[in-house]
Amino acid sequence: MQELFTVNNLWMMMATILVFIMHLGFASLEAGLTRAKNTVNILFKNTIIPAIGILTYALVGFNLMYPGSGFEGSFVGFAGFGLSLPEGWDSSNYNAGYTYFTDFIFQAMFAATAATIVSGAVAERIKLGPFIFFSILYVSICYPIVGMWKWGGGFLNTLDTPFYDFAGSTIVHSVGGWGALVGAFLLGPRIGKYTERGMNAIPGHNLPLATFGVFLLWFGWFGFNGGSVLSANPGAVSRVFVTTSIAASAGAFGALIVSYLKFKSYDITMVLNGILAGLVGITAGADQMGVGESAIIGFIGGGLIVFGVVLFDKIKIDDPVGAISVHLIGGIWGTLAVGIFGELAGWNQFISQLIGVGAVGFFCFLFAGIILFTLKKSIGIRVDQKEEIEGLDINEHGMRAYPDFATKD
Amino acid sequence: MQELFTVNNLWMMMATILVFIMHLGFASLEAGLTRAKNTVNILFKNTIIPAIGILTYALVGFNLMYPGSGFEGSFVGFAGFGLSLPEGWDSSNYNAGYTYFTDFIFQAMFAATAATIVSGAVAERIKLGPFIFFSILYVSICYPIVGMWKWGGGFLNTLDTPFYDFAGSTIVHSVGGWGALVGAFLLGPRIGKYTERGMNAIPGHNLPLATFGVFLLWFGWFGFNGGSVLSANPGAVSRVFVTTSIAASAGAFGALIVSYLKFKSYDITMVLNGILAGLVGITAGADQMGVGESAIIGFIGGGLIVFGVVLFDKIKIDDPVGAISVHLIGGIWGTLAVGIFGELAGWNQFISQLIGVGAVGFFCFLFAGIILFTLKKSIGIRVDQKEEIEGLDINEHGMRAYPDFATKD
Amino acid sequence: MQELFTVNNLWMMMATILVFIMHLGFASLEAGLTRAKNTVNILFKNTIIPAIGILTYALVGFNLMYPGSGFEGSFVGFAGFGLSLPEGWDSSNYNAGYTYFTDFIFQAMFAATAATIVSGAVAERIKLGPFIFFSILYVSICYPIVGMWKWGGGFLNTLDTPFYDFAGSTIVHSVGGWGALVGAFLLGPRIGKYTERGMNAIPGHNLPLATFGVFLLWFGWFGFNGGSVLSANPGAVSRVFVTTSIAASAGAFGALIVSYLKFKSYDITMVLNGILAGLVGITAGADQMGVGESAIIGFIGGGLIVFGVVLFDKIKIDDPVGAISVHLIGGIWGTLAVGIFGELAGWNQFISQLIGVGAVGFFCFLFAGIILFTLKKSIGIRVDQKEEIEGLDINEHGMRAYPDFATKD
Repeated sequence: MQELFTVNNLWMMMATILVFIMHLGFASLEAGLTRAKNTVNILFKNTIIPAIGILTYALVGFNLMYPGSGFEGSFVGFAGFGLSLPEGWDSSNYNAGYTYFTDFIFQAMFAATAATIVSGAVAERIKLGPFIFFSILYVSICYPIVGMWKWGGGFLNTLDTPFYDFAGSTIVHSVGGWGALVGAFLLGPRIGKYTERGMNAIPGHNLPLATFGVFLLWFGWFGFNGGSVLSANPGAVSRVFVTTSIAASAGAFGALIVSYLKFKSYDITMVLNGILAGLVGITAGADQMGVGESAIIGFIGGGLIVFGVVLFDKIKIDDPVGAISVHLIGGIWGTLAVGIFGELAGWNQFISQLIGVGAVGFFCFLFAGIILFTLKKSIGIRVDQKEEIEGLDINEHGMRAYPDFATKD
Repeated sequence: MQELFTVNNLWMMMATILVFIMHLGFASLEAGLTRAKNTVNILFKNTIIPAIGILTYALVGFNLMYPGSGFEGSFVGFAGFGLSLPEGWDSSNYNAGYTYFTDFIFQAMFAATAATIVSGAVAERIKLGPFIFFSILYVSICYPIVGMWKWGGGFLNTLDTPFYDFAGSTIVHSVGGWGALVGAFLLGPRIGKYTERGMNAIPGHNLPLATFGVFLLWFGWFGFNGGSVLSANPGAVSRVFVTTSIAASAGAFGALIVSYLKFKSYDITMVLNGILAGLVGITAGADQMGVGESAIIGFIGGGLIVFGVVLFDKIKIDDPVGAISVHLIGGIWGTLAVGIFGELAGWNQFISQLIGVGAVGFFCFLFAGIILFTLKKSIGIRVDQKEEIEGLDINEHGMRAYPDFATKD
Repeated sequence: MQELFTVNNLWMMMATILVFIMHLGFASLEAGLTRAKNTVNILFKNTIIPAIGILTYALVGFNLMYPGSGFEGSFVGFAGFGLSLPEGWDSSNYNAGYTYFTDFIFQAMFAATAATIVSGAVAERIKLGPFIFFSILYVSICYPIVGMWKWGGGFLNTLDTPFYDFAGSTIVHSVGGWGALVGAFLLGPRIGKYTERGMNAIPGHNLPLATFGVFLLWFGWFGFNGGSVLSANPGAVSRVFVTTSIAASAGAFGALIVSYLKFKSYDITMVLNGILAGLVGITAGADQMGVGESAIIGFIGGGLIVFGVVLFDKIKIDDPVGAISVHLIGGIWGTLAVGIFGELAGWNQFISQLIGVGAVGFFCFLFAGIILFTLKKSIGIRVDQKEEIEGLDINEHGMRAYPDFATKD
């Protein structure tokens, strides 16, 4: 018994570490896909966000997301500020799979993800102060409330056919994706992106960095999805490893084939985002799918992001890294896929999945919208034109990411 | 019982993740040791290869490599397309150390390695399409057939004195190495490498990337070798950790000392490749060696690559990253070392090791040769001169890896 | 029993891998915070140091640090050259948490850390040969002797109120920090750093690299601190994960707020070093603190490094990466904090902590001082002026880190 508890807890701690390193993945991907003149700003945001996530999750988030018994089926609950060790916190009396502290730190590593996703979509033009202010609220209030709806036993979990989201296609990725959509819309496109003569691609400045980011995210996703089993159960975790990897691989091919057919070129950024879309897509049902279903979900997810990127450019929503396509479209696709493929597939489940997608989308859209709109109308959320052209690094941070190199900006 | 199975399986899953991240290591090393104008191409190949490996291994590779009972002692066997869960797949009835899915995904992560090794040797001049076509065949057919000879119970495993290759000095690394040799030979050297006035070193464009690559490979090798114990057995795995690390460290010194004596300079690329040669060298016998023997194997392996690099330049086989020296020479050395040092050492064992090296070499040489020669004579395998000079990134991918930087190419 | 031993040992092996990858973190951080013209030199040092650490620890370090019974309460002991497997080395008879080989390799990964810390402070001007010579002695003699004082049962462990240093704020980090201080002092500042018109900041050449370094260090610190539990005890290790992450996050904010108040800019290098200072600070008492105390220790640690950096510039000790502030000041702070906060807090403990800090400081200062002073007065430790201005890469290594890029040096 103690042995099994120790193994389970060990895996949950390893999964924690793996999810932690995803923050480096996000930092690296976002920095790689944007311009050298804004790199310090991006690194700064992505370094401070996990710190914000961990501290605020200890202060309020964990107890908002898991308010405990008495809040089943509800919209919001709160178990009080700060952490407090329950009786038997370090034994299987707390949970068969982990201690109280493991529970907290695993969940805390998830929390910051939502804000990180937003960061990519608003990159290269958002003011640092308002972004940090928004991130604190989004991570510490919006994310845990929505998370509570399902994982904390809230109303999405008590539907007749409960909404299902294994590791967070909706609860994590689309939460970030909705914030990204609102942010990119309210900010408007970067200067020079959409002109009268059409759309200008603004290429990322460092594709090795972007590639590092995607590999680190895939690496971390073994913990993100695998840890969501909440124990080291050999069959369940190893199944999740397989479905996750198959979906990521198929996502690469989905994006490769669709982008090749559309653009007649081998676009590495599409392949990289295709892998991520495959990963986001499988996340909701990684424990429910077989090998073939995982391949289909990943392949479609990868293909969808190519259309997503084209679509958002058409409606002039400028998302420098493709975060909305990957996390919002991919997240919705993965969530609905649980109703279409796998062990839970069925009409009732599909409806519940739609309800979950809609409820989460509505709340996040409103939450992000109110905060960002208020900030926009008060202190402003966008850097001024001169600063955007010169780059945020010099103007907000007084430094350059690559001072020894001759750059073209 | 269930507890021990869960721990064993957990280690095998962690080892899977570690082997996965080796693909980022290969991508990073190969990109770092080549020129900036070909970086996107290299990242593209190394991103798509693990996806190919995982998908084809599910489709055919796993069942070619482990065809099951009835094929003992044979050359080839096949258990059918796709994965299918046997009875008791998630319990110790399948294996004391892992579930069926863990087995598959751990082995799948290995599979792509062979193609990745080839990638380095043919870099900066191979056409993308033919390379991907070759990779698919090499990963999905050549690698699992050869692997079956030993690990699937084939004829190398049923010699009177069975061929021994613990984690794949021959079965993985020299398989890649032979493909690399054939590819580099059939392609010919890069433009400007060997001229009438002698050999021109073409320096790698980003040595931090190369260093990242080697550290990530060493990091992943704990899973590559440690996972080859096929359980979390404390004595066996910890011994492998020690032999692996000692050999890597000694490899660094072997290459450092030999290269300093030959060239009177502290060449970081030699030290990095020396570490890899030490790792490749210990791989065949990581569970058989003591500390002193590991140091000797690593040191000699590290020294050998310096001679290897010089030798291949002398015969004008242009290997941009030193892959042939590291994986082929290192792989052969490590395999033979099992007959010389450690618990299995002896004349009969040495002969069996030679047989294994020869049989694998013959088959891989032929397999790679036939495919690449056919491709060369039909659609061609080498980019045209203009494209090679301008760089593959612009011509095959329509993008640059570092568009914000002033580059010299 | 065997099951629990296997889990414990598995965690200690995972912790070993995590500490290993910290060496890539140090390499990356140091390279990122210095100039492009010295990058190869820095990568070379940081690649060879772990190799030195592992080999010398096998040869002498392990047996100096853990001489075994009979040396309790003493200053120095030695159990002989090389490794030798005791009876029952691979079972819980050796230790409840790990095998002999796991013990060795986990400790070996720690050993090289001390020299790596020095490397940062002496960067961009130290000669390679003398640095390697110094590193060998510091890692193989100074570090294990000091480590023995506490972890090997020496005199700091047998004080009436034993000195406490959970994972090495003093035993590892300040050992490195003292060497860094002595080295930076004896070398003198880099050319152009302090001029008659005041101090010139010499910015790091690659801030993504620096960010990678800090994230990898935090990642590895889960193994550094978590592994210091010496078993997979669920409560103890998960508690350490939480205190470590809270302190790192609070360190980011401590440095951010203090540096913003002092300089009115969002300085990413301060935030990165603040995270490290939080990590170094919590290391001595990571198993003794609650969440609030961890936040305080991290926050103060992060704030202190801003003052540290300013202080060392004022007294013209040139530390290119801030290693002395992070590891020496942070290490002392963390060690003393054990006497102020947490379960051991008290006057007697505080005095013992002071004794430990003082004794270790005295010995390391002397050890490093004698070696480096002797080297300085004999073969010299500093490259000549021309070499320093042109960069160490061309002069010591005959190569450039980024030959395809136009650089400004």
